[in-house]
Amino acid sequence: MSDVQPQDQEFVDHAYEIGENIIDAVRSAIGTGARGDLISLFNDLHPADIADILEQVSAPERMEILTLWGDDIDGEVLAELDETLSAEIMEALPDNIVGEAMRELDTDDVVDLVEDMDEPQQERVLEALDTSDRLAVQQSLAYAEETAGRLMQRELVMAPTHWTVGEAIDAFRADQDLPDRFYDVVIVDPKMEPVGKVPLHSLISSPRETPLPEIMDEEFRVIPVNQSQEDVAYAFNQYNMVSAPVVDEQNRLVGVITMDDAMEVLEEKADEDIKLLAGVGDEALTDSIWGTTRLRFPWLAVNLVTCILASMVISQFSTTIEAIVALAVLMPIVASMGGNAGTQTLTVTVRALATKDLTRANAWRVIRREIIVGFFNGIIFAVIVGIVGVVWFGTPMLGVVLALAMVVNMVVAGLAGISIPIVLDKLGIDPALASSAFVTTVTDIVGFFVFLGLAAALLL
Amino acid sequence: MSDVQPQDQEFVDHAYEIGENIIDAVRSAIGTGARGDLISLFNDLHPADIADILEQVSAPERMEILTLWGDDIDGEVLAELDETLSAEIMEALPDNIVGEAMRELDTDDVVDLVEDMDEPQQERVLEALDTSDRLAVQQSLAYAEETAGRLMQRELVMAPTHWTVGEAIDAFRADQDLPDRFYDVVIVDPKMEPVGKVPLHSLISSPRETPLPEIMDEEFRVIPVNQSQEDVAYAFNQYNMVSAPVVDEQNRLVGVITMDDAMEVLEEKADEDIKLLAGVGDEALTDSIWGTTRLRFPWLAVNLVTCILASMVISQFSTTIEAIVALAVLMPIVASMGGNAGTQTLTVTVRALATKDLTRANAWRVIRREIIVGFFNGIIFAVIVGIVGVVWFGTPMLGVVLALAMVVNMVVAGLAGISIPIVLDKLGIDPALASSAFVTTVTDIVGFFVFLGLAAALLL
Repeated sequence: MSDVQPQDQEFVDHAYEIGENIIDAVRSAIGTGARGDLISLFNDLHPADIADILEQVSAPERMEILTLWGDDIDGEVLAELDETLSAEIMEALPDNIVGEAMRELDTDDVVDLVEDMDEPQQERVLEALDTSDRLAVQQSLAYAEETAGRLMQRELVMAPTHWTVGEAIDAFRADQDLPDRFYDVVIVDPKMEPVGKVPLHSLISSPRETPLPEIMDEEFRVIPVNQSQEDVAYAFNQYNMVSAPVVDEQNRLVGVITMDDAMEVLEEKADEDIKLLAGVGDEALTDSIWGTTRLRFPWLAVNLVTCILASMVISQFSTTIEAIVALAVLMPIVASMGGNAGTQTLTVTVRALATKDLTRANAWRVIRREIIVGFFNGIIFAVIVGIVGVVWFGTPMLGVVLALAMVVNMVVAGLAGISIPIVLDKLGIDPALASSAFVTTVTDIVGFFVFLGLAAALLL
Repeated sequence: MSDVQPQDQEFVDHAYEIGENIIDAVRSAIGTGARGDLISLFNDLHPADIADILEQVSAPERMEILTLWGDDIDGEVLAELDETLSAEIMEALPDNIVGEAMRELDTDDVVDLVEDMDEPQQERVLEALDTSDRLAVQQSLAYAEETAGRLMQRELVMAPTHWTVGEAIDAFRADQDLPDRFYDVVIVDPKMEPVGKVPLHSLISSPRETPLPEIMDEEFRVIPVNQSQEDVAYAFNQYNMVSAPVVDEQNRLVGVITMDDAMEVLEEKADEDIKLLAGVGDEALTDSIWGTTRLRFPWLAVNLVTCILASMVISQFSTTIEAIVALAVLMPIVASMGGNAGTQTLTVTVRALATKDLTRANAWRVIRREIIVGFFNGIIFAVIVGIVGVVWFGTPMLGVVLALAMVVNMVVAGLAGISIPIVLDKLGIDPALASSAFVTTVTDIVGFFVFLGLAAALLL
């Protein structure tokens, strides 16, 4: 209730953006070293907003804030930070402060924070946890990265099949160790195998004497502990789940995944796709200048290689260009249009694969569609650029060459844009890696080759 | 429990993908007109999976399935379909069947389905609903598109401030009209203003005599009915909310938004960003060939205009190219490297704006960072291409020209990549609209101009 909404009331568009007044107040607190002011300011803010403040200030300011905050650093804030930044901060802070901050976190958040630490630091930090929590975290860390096992929390609420609603409610009222938040009660048999789940709204609205199995959800899916987090997120989104039990290979209940974790994975995956398609790695605004330069370098290097390949194609036609310099003027049009059309198809394909809308059932139909769309747009733009070529340079045959090259390259663009990601997906490689750079290599090379080749054949 | 998992057990990677065996079974059911088979097959599937099947079969097969399914068509399936497709299907089906299918849906799903219908059809379809539901839907439709009012459901659970846990549970047990799913009880004062919410897990674990206000969530945010859906989704994600009450201008409770709706908005927004950046509109795999061609045309047309601008720059240097044809061979390298670097910066910027990580507090620092990163990578690649130019063509000065143009264009790329989306955002335009096409226009024109201009000055 005592919640300062970090909202700029004037601009509806900037709802939930951290207000400048709050950042100014933080800056003035660290400026004067007013620890009490900082703590009372942070007490009124949601941990996610404090994390945003830490992300938006400069690196030196960030360390000043954390030093002033000291023992009171909230683990939830660390959990909400961008990954690179939380790693950087936990590196800089004393291990006991990091450990203390983690004591209140659910095990899934602790796992997320410590999984990338080196082992000695991990051990020092986990020291601060209660033995049972530490064990739970260590068990989760034993599962492979990017699996459900790393995403689940150990804190869960379960009940045996023979309980009634009343017995369950009495047990929960007496239990001091319930998780902070839960949405379903997992019903387990004596072997600890989940047989169903009772959503809390059913529990609360049923008579005390109702046996739990009678009000179990019809929809019931368990998540295998080794399932990829991407598939987990897909399932939550597809089936509108709020929480789901996680089971080990023996089908025994080992944890629970909640929707907020799934939402985060989904968001991360979309973010990753966007960035991969544009040839950017997993970078954040808080990365250092040198870190960013290094992260972008490999993609640019790949692009340079593909450019040089395209240049080699052009150099085969040096004498043609020397004879008709208009070719040099017009050749980027064919290549660029193909590149754009290819990127369009590529993007739609990568998204369709991510959302499992493109499957073996419709792959051939979609491939055919992309080629035909390329052909249609190729024809339309062939007519337009053909006319441009004739009007601009007064050579009808130049218009014809331009038009023909356009049609060929647009069809090739559609084909490359859909087949490269599909093939990568079949090979088990993330199709978003078929970033524009790869597709435009094809369209550049084909575009230059067809245009200059036709020109050499028909114009000289 | 009777849930066929549409899972290809062989490939962990294809978990949750609709199995070919299921699609084959559907095809065989429509082939023989076996209505019973189709219905019993669909009874075992989640509506979201049936929607996926309808999306993946061909258009004629789709109509056959719907015709055979007839009266039993499930409204949930319509709600899960891609928007263009659901509109198409509801157009083709008789209005009374569509209306009947909607009877079981929550009001937010009905609103989502009927909001794009023309008024006569909307009225005919809403006829089938109960009066109270119809009124609730019509009230929601009175709110602006893309606002919380259109996203919320009217079905909600509330309690007055003076109730205890026991009184609330007794009331819910007696209530026949509870929503299908709910996660929180909204506590309202006599003026119907929400004063807090009690999560069900607190309700279920507190003694009967506890007054509800004592166990209200500390975190409590109400959503204004006119807030944009994008901001609603951001709030759910940022503050890990499961449901939130929606209030009108007088701060009175009018509905509730749940996390699954927010998750959908978030997913749609990310999808839209990805597609806008690649110059694709809001298209789906199920769009017709002609529809897709038309949707992609405007983006390609914009690209053509920018290409022609670049060509005009090149044509200013015709005599230079005629004298040194190596320039035509090398010029695409400078333009393409700039285009790639610009797209990298653009993408990171658009995402940072969408996640509210880029604000007035850090804008200048980030802009400076992008320019410096561009400069650093410019220097690195200047050295590489300079050497390539010298080795390939044996003219040291050509290498110098290539290197200088590279540095300039990479810095320009960083500047264009960050400033174009920021300016668009300030103007209230979706920054993702600054798709690669616009940024690459700048890098193409600058790239060709600087390279050819320097060549004309230094080499001739």
